Amino acid sequence: MKIVTLGLIQMMVGEDKKANLSRAEKLTREAVSSGAQVVMLPEMFNGPYDTDAFASYAEEGVGETRSFLSSLAKELGIVLIGGSFIEREGDDLFNTSFVYDEQGTEIHRHRKVHLFDIDVPGGQYFRESDVLTAGDAFGVFDTSFGTFGLAICFDVRFSSEFTKLAQMGAQMIFVPAAFNMTTGPAHWETLFRARALDHQLFMVGVSPAGNPEAAYQAWGHSIVTNPWGEVVMQLGREEGVAVVQIDLGEIDLVRQRIPVFHAL
Amino acid sequence: MKIVTLGLIQMMVGEDKKANLSRAEKLTREAVSSGAQVVMLPEMFNGPYDTDAFASYAEEGVGETRSFLSSLAKELGIVLIGGSFIEREGDDLFNTSFVYDEQGTEIHRHRKVHLFDIDVPGGQYFRESDVLTAGDAFGVFDTSFGTFGLAICFDVRFSSEFTKLAQMGAQMIFVPAAFNMTTGPAHWETLFRARALDHQLFMVGVSPAGNPEAAYQAWGHSIVTNPWGEVVMQLGREEGVAVVQIDLGEIDLVRQRIPVFHAL
Repeated sequence: MKIVTLGLIQMMVGEDKKANLSRAEKLTREAVSSGAQVVMLPEMFNGPYDTDAFASYAEEGVGETRSFLSSLAKELGIVLIGGSFIEREGDDLFNTSFVYDEQGTEIHRHRKVHLFDIDVPGGQYFRESDVLTAGDAFGVFDTSFGTFGLAICFDVRFSSEFTKLAQMGAQMIFVPAAFNMTTGPAHWETLFRARALDHQLFMVGVSPAGNPEAAYQAWGHSIVTNPWGEVVMQLGREEGVAVVQIDLGEIDLVRQRIPVFHAL
Repeated sequence: MKIVTLGLIQMMVGEDKKANLSRAEKLTREAVSSGAQVVMLPEMFNGPYDTDAFASYAEEGVGETRSFLSSLAKELGIVLIGGSFIEREGDDLFNTSFVYDEQGTEIHRHRKVHLFDIDVPGGQYFRESDVLTAGDAFGVFDTSFGTFGLAICFDVRFSSEFTKLAQMGAQMIFVPAAFNMTTGPAHWETLFRARALDHQLFMVGVSPAGNPEAAYQAWGHSIVTNPWGEVVMQLGREEGVAVVQIDLGEIDLVRQRIPVFHAL
């Protein structure tokens, strides 16, 4: 038994950055007061998911959002998976996730590797690659609870990246994400179940809540799947906080029962 | 539009090899009379799925079962995916699938690479590796309908093998399989949906029907999934023949809409 309590923050994201940070703080405090030890925010939690808006929300170096995340993690004594927001480095914009430990120390950064370009006739159109630069690596990070991995949204479609993270020792992989009303109902749950089942580990996806006023309609449905490929918990599209206890010990049990992991 | 009509033979398999071949023949004729052009038999279709029985059903070189499959394919003018049976080569036994074209020519052989060893307390126990030797390669084969790949049962748990087959040009991957009453309900559908979705191709799984008298209870549920990750057709556990028309043109459409394939 290696119990860890997760807090998933499926927050409504609007156009006001300060209001978004306040909302993230309020809901994170709520999750922690219900026992959450590892709290995760959604993809693009400090501003709208809209390529035209990315540049104006971007932050370079340790700006408002990274300072906010670090302080919150330290004050509450939690591991904080900081969803993602737009990071600037010179002329480049990245969709980036930062992770903080209980001391507020930044312990991991992931820049989305597989940018989201989609064109479904009569469905969703979006091209991140028009304005963003892709990251070039996936990695894991150690915490007081275990070794975890991270990927952002469209990254989840590439199984081989998860195989590498599993081989690097990831016991749980966090995916800040914002699927939409085309790909959400069609693919979201299957992808999270399959990545967990194939690699015999836990997967956690956190999306913004559906916002009726947003140009991009997020699917929500923040989810936890286990090494047996089951859905442990899944929200709807509304704003909500989920607090979920999981036992990392399940990983070894499943890996003994069906010897897949060691042959990956 | 590149239409191909598949026939899935979810047959009941018993202990009498001749009766099993007759049953396969009868149901294949039934599928072909309904329009099937590519017909697929289940894993271990000529004898029981029982490690103690494997040696006595094994055939070396071109024996009874390979001759039967070749003749049937030629007579009916079909591509025949010959499920699998136990092949002997010297001291080694393999779980092998042979494929025949419309002229009865053997165009592909796959020896199961990932042997099925499982031990779920209170659930399924089975160890193929006690008696079988593992194959060492996956490959594709060309037919008059397109380029196809093949894997056997437990092989389906390893996503990276399907990535390689997709990169070799497989448009459809056939998986003769026999999941059980533990892993079937838990994993079968998710695996077939995910392999199709991740690689944006068609997946076809054919299982023996559930046989109340057998030691090993097959899950059945022979299935076709498409490049969008949907279940096109799925049987129950009873014996049955499914004839399914699919359009290989869907592959390119999906690959254009969500650009995953070229980044695999």
